[in-house]
Amino acid sequence: MAKVKIGMIGAGRIGQLHAKNIIQSDMMELKGIADVYTDHLQGTELEKRAGYITNDPEEILKDKEIEAIFICTSTDTHVHYIEECARHGKHIFCEKPISFKIEETKSVLEAVKQAGVKFQVGFNRRYDKHFRQVKQLVEQGELGELHVIKITSRDPGTPPETYVKRSGGMFMDMTIHDFDMIRYLAGSEVKDITAKAGNLVDPMFEKYGDVDTAIITVTFENGTLGVIDNSRQAVYGYDQRIEVFGSEGSALAENELETNVVVAKRDFVRCAQPKHFFLDRYQDAFVDEINEFATAILTDCAFTCTGEDGWKAEQMAKAAKISYEENRTVRIEEIV
Amino acid sequence: MAKVKIGMIGAGRIGQLHAKNIIQSDMMELKGIADVYTDHLQGTELEKRAGYITNDPEEILKDKEIEAIFICTSTDTHVHYIEECARHGKHIFCEKPISFKIEETKSVLEAVKQAGVKFQVGFNRRYDKHFRQVKQLVEQGELGELHVIKITSRDPGTPPETYVKRSGGMFMDMTIHDFDMIRYLAGSEVKDITAKAGNLVDPMFEKYGDVDTAIITVTFENGTLGVIDNSRQAVYGYDQRIEVFGSEGSALAENELETNVVVAKRDFVRCAQPKHFFLDRYQDAFVDEINEFATAILTDCAFTCTGEDGWKAEQMAKAAKISYEENRTVRIEEIV
Amino acid sequence: MAKVKIGMIGAGRIGQLHAKNIIQSDMMELKGIADVYTDHLQGTELEKRAGYITNDPEEILKDKEIEAIFICTSTDTHVHYIEECARHGKHIFCEKPISFKIEETKSVLEAVKQAGVKFQVGFNRRYDKHFRQVKQLVEQGELGELHVIKITSRDPGTPPETYVKRSGGMFMDMTIHDFDMIRYLAGSEVKDITAKAGNLVDPMFEKYGDVDTAIITVTFENGTLGVIDNSRQAVYGYDQRIEVFGSEGSALAENELETNVVVAKRDFVRCAQPKHFFLDRYQDAFVDEINEFATAILTDCAFTCTGEDGWKAEQMAKAAKISYEENRTVRIEEIV
Amino acid sequence: MAKVKIGMIGAGRIGQLHAKNIIQSDMMELKGIADVYTDHLQGTELEKRAGYITNDPEEILKDKEIEAIFICTSTDTHVHYIEECARHGKHIFCEKPISFKIEETKSVLEAVKQAGVKFQVGFNRRYDKHFRQVKQLVEQGELGELHVIKITSRDPGTPPETYVKRSGGMFMDMTIHDFDMIRYLAGSEVKDITAKAGNLVDPMFEKYGDVDTAIITVTFENGTLGVIDNSRQAVYGYDQRIEVFGSEGSALAENELETNVVVAKRDFVRCAQPKHFFLDRYQDAFVDEINEFATAILTDCAFTCTGEDGWKAEQMAKAAKISYEENRTVRIEEIV
Repeated sequence: MAKVKIGMIGAGRIGQLHAKNIIQSDMMELKGIADVYTDHLQGTELEKRAGYITNDPEEILKDKEIEAIFICTSTDTHVHYIEECARHGKHIFCEKPISFKIEETKSVLEAVKQAGVKFQVGFNRRYDKHFRQVKQLVEQGELGELHVIKITSRDPGTPPETYVKRSGGMFMDMTIHDFDMIRYLAGSEVKDITAKAGNLVDPMFEKYGDVDTAIITVTFENGTLGVIDNSRQAVYGYDQRIEVFGSEGSALAENELETNVVVAKRDFVRCAQPKHFFLDRYQDAFVDEINEFATAILTDCAFTCTGEDGWKAEQMAKAAKISYEENRTVRIEEIV
Repeated sequence: MAKVKIGMIGAGRIGQLHAKNIIQSDMMELKGIADVYTDHLQGTELEKRAGYITNDPEEILKDKEIEAIFICTSTDTHVHYIEECARHGKHIFCEKPISFKIEETKSVLEAVKQAGVKFQVGFNRRYDKHFRQVKQLVEQGELGELHVIKITSRDPGTPPETYVKRSGGMFMDMTIHDFDMIRYLAGSEVKDITAKAGNLVDPMFEKYGDVDTAIITVTFENGTLGVIDNSRQAVYGYDQRIEVFGSEGSALAENELETNVVVAKRDFVRCAQPKHFFLDRYQDAFVDEINEFATAILTDCAFTCTGEDGWKAEQMAKAAKISYEENRTVRIEEIV
Repeated sequence: MAKVKIGMIGAGRIGQLHAKNIIQSDMMELKGIADVYTDHLQGTELEKRAGYITNDPEEILKDKEIEAIFICTSTDTHVHYIEECARHGKHIFCEKPISFKIEETKSVLEAVKQAGVKFQVGFNRRYDKHFRQVKQLVEQGELGELHVIKITSRDPGTPPETYVKRSGGMFMDMTIHDFDMIRYLAGSEVKDITAKAGNLVDPMFEKYGDVDTAIITVTFENGTLGVIDNSRQAVYGYDQRIEVFGSEGSALAENELETNVVVAKRDFVRCAQPKHFFLDRYQDAFVDEINEFATAILTDCAFTCTGEDGWKAEQMAKAAKISYEENRTVRIEEIV
Repeated sequence: MAKVKIGMIGAGRIGQLHAKNIIQSDMMELKGIADVYTDHLQGTELEKRAGYITNDPEEILKDKEIEAIFICTSTDTHVHYIEECARHGKHIFCEKPISFKIEETKSVLEAVKQAGVKFQVGFNRRYDKHFRQVKQLVEQGELGELHVIKITSRDPGTPPETYVKRSGGMFMDMTIHDFDMIRYLAGSEVKDITAKAGNLVDPMFEKYGDVDTAIITVTFENGTLGVIDNSRQAVYGYDQRIEVFGSEGSALAENELETNVVVAKRDFVRCAQPKHFFLDRYQDAFVDEINEFATAILTDCAFTCTGEDGWKAEQMAKAAKISYEENRTVRIEEIV
């Protein structure tokens, strides 16, 4: 079977993750990796398995054999590399968010469209087997008409200050996954968004005009109500739950725990904590995500997770920010 | 041990429930029951155990031996009977809400205060053992500073149209329990309320300007964020869950199920549904509620659940209604 | 509705429990209580509600109005009182075991039969709602043909030495409930029994030739295999679980927990322990048990739990004891 | 880092599984695969990544570069290949059981010892993260002295008749994993074994003198009691649970479910089934197993799972068979 020849730009934490999954996939071949820094790749399995490693992204972009490129650089460079990929006719996998400015996102997606290349945005949670089952139940009508969708999404601990500074803010950096998920599950477009938020975990966030705790209500065009609650720090682990409630029943995706061992003692009964780290929690989802990417290229199909989905999630993030700042409900059509 | 001599006004469903619990309590004696209709009490255990049954509430109010009165009539008569009880120097247990008009609630509570009688409002859920444990964890500081409080409260099915008509609307009739609970758990006063709601379950509600589904966000003075989600119909049963999330951890009160039996078959694994009916779910809470009432009278202590708590929950209900109607966040101080 | 007039002989812990349930039942009236000691009943609700209290069991036996008698005395007096009840034509509710000597049990049951009075033995667990659902699933054929039945039954702590001394040994005192249950669920008679046991919890048991830990395998005539595991001390609470596994699936009755609250902290996730005390765990079962007794008398129906069931459980207990002592499988027909 | 050079003899289902894990491991290099049939490997990833594929096991055995060999052939050939590996100075990973005749197992392990090569037997479940945590709790003394160990081990469906015919019988083929696990957890040697078993699932087993359902009680030298229940067919999936109960508490390893989604509907609440297939359930355990093998060779350490462990499990299987056939408890010292 033919393999999609892949180039990768950016080999930080998420880039390395994708690279490792690519070299273990039957559907892809990792031709080249480009990063400003490449020392950390010396002597690794990646170095041995990747065709070449370079400091020059141009080498990847100009590599005739490469059909598709993973953009795993920092968000502020996404737009540049998307344009370059489009110009060179490469299919694109880009991490979320596409950019911090939704008007830039819009225009670069237009360029992608003109170039006729495929574009997938990295909303890995859509590939989580638990959430996928919930989506399936919704689509099969098992839950009837949807009335309420609830997402709980809490990080196990605060990111480093250097990250917070450049993160684009909690709504754009973290809630964006939940915005995509809630819209995906609702199967309807957003009408308005109301965000209540605060700085309860760590004053560090406030230094950057950021929040660390939020409850965001989303109303959808079809009447479905949604609510997301976020925290930058759940001391007990990475808390990722979804509940969809409809006229015919509800579906609840519970956390994955570290183990299924229950210990009963004189003073307590104890079970395991949720998987602590997003790379553990979504390990299989990351694999399925890129396999779908490869499949879509090999079979010339559409992606589950398009550029437009990326843009709409950014639009929701921007609406939430304004809602919080102005303490009011923001109609989604205000955000263009 | 001395017993508190109780009179009861109103012997409908909730009145009968309290009456049955009173006659089984070691701390109370049911001296008399008054209701417009008394035929349904003929030949029941209540008839045998209650001192007397009458169609005339005056008989109860004027009974010198009666120390405390349960007001279990329809909401529109509460204010009248509270006034009468206060005037006759009887302690009062009154079902929620105290009235549909918060200004009336305020003035009648003033009369109660003047009369120097005790007053307890029937927020039975405060006595639920699961929620009580959550409250205790909060008070012991086990959860640290509170960041997010979530209440899911869904009825198993829609009430009859005649009930809806006179219910005061979902916020005042149903959410009022959740408003009390969320404020109780937060240990802080409300700053503002935002309600998103809709008519998704049954068009019948709309006929009376009522909603059947809602997500209500509450921000507290101490920064804690709260959210309540309500539905008039959860087909799988009475869904009553609470989650408190803080800097040191979270506490989640799950539903009580009909049984703890898990059945595994070729095509599914099945467990029991939540207890279907509020009288089952809160059976023990109703008992503990009235025993606290008796204890407080016998030992001259304060109640957990005061008239002021009743008024504040009504204030929240009114704020939610305005928030929903005007699609905006309502500051609690607007509601006086 | 007519009420069954009840007399009670023996007002220790279990007698008082039944007495309290009787006075709250709509179907029974507690006419008299007899016990050697009656001081502990002075001033209690029981004293007020029971017709009379006496030190003389004869008074109960000879009371013409009393139709049925609860025998709640120590096991070594059961046979005597059963005979007396039979002789006086009273229906009998007797606590388990009927006696420590199965030949005595057999002969006294013969006397009961001759007298034509009804006889129920106190296997309260048959009335537990969880186990009842399992039994129902079995009867409805939901689990297909039964292959394996497993019962875990562990006490929360060792009984006092004075109790152990007169208990008849773990198999007769504690496992007897499980023997009845496993036979009840199997719907088949026992073929043979193999008990492995030991003295692992407390050397005190050994003083009386008793064990405190056991695994007992039961093979049934229809081929179903059963296994019971017992301990006199589960530090985490009263552990009462049943699993029935068949050709079409399995049913697992899990423990009832103190609360349904789950607490997640930095270092652990904690849930509640099983209800600690058998009176809590089987509170409702004790009520249903005696209501069935009353119903069977009022409607002249058969009991769920007959004298023969009591005898068969004792037979199993005796087989288990021999199996343990002789380290061999014991065929049930050896025990007559 | 150096890699262990691996040869593989036998490339059926389990051989291919190990081979795939080897090529993805950082610690091993798959130099060669030998199997009588190699057509099924044509064009697979294995073919590309393995150094060579051959029909001749001799080629593997004589390959100077190969340090260690995986024996994944049918059980009746294990002894031959173990001898050959030992003779050629290769470390050995051998699937369970080592042989169907425990005297052969003993003598071939002696040959291994003489040759001074390392030997690991494929008890993959020791590497399961849930069971590993239980073992750790035991070793840390969290459960105190062990009183009862319970293992439930049920296959999702019967194997094909051709497999049953050559399987060595349920005790040797299936229960052998549980025998190893229960002895591993007990941390004590076996005293005696009692097996009750039957042919309840499918008459096909009887044709080969085999059983399909069993309850096996194990008593250990330290007094701990153990019980294993097996079935060849649990219609709801692969049921793999362990419970260890001791003086200080218990640990229960529950099944891994397909997903963590709970669906509540009008008539039921449904959760996912246990993972259905052993390759899914123990996917990570298989990886950890071979990585321990490689680590032990690279660092010259002992294995967790030695030849002696393999032999002892076979001894238990033989004792169980005799126990069942003669309907008596068998002392382990009878089996030599």
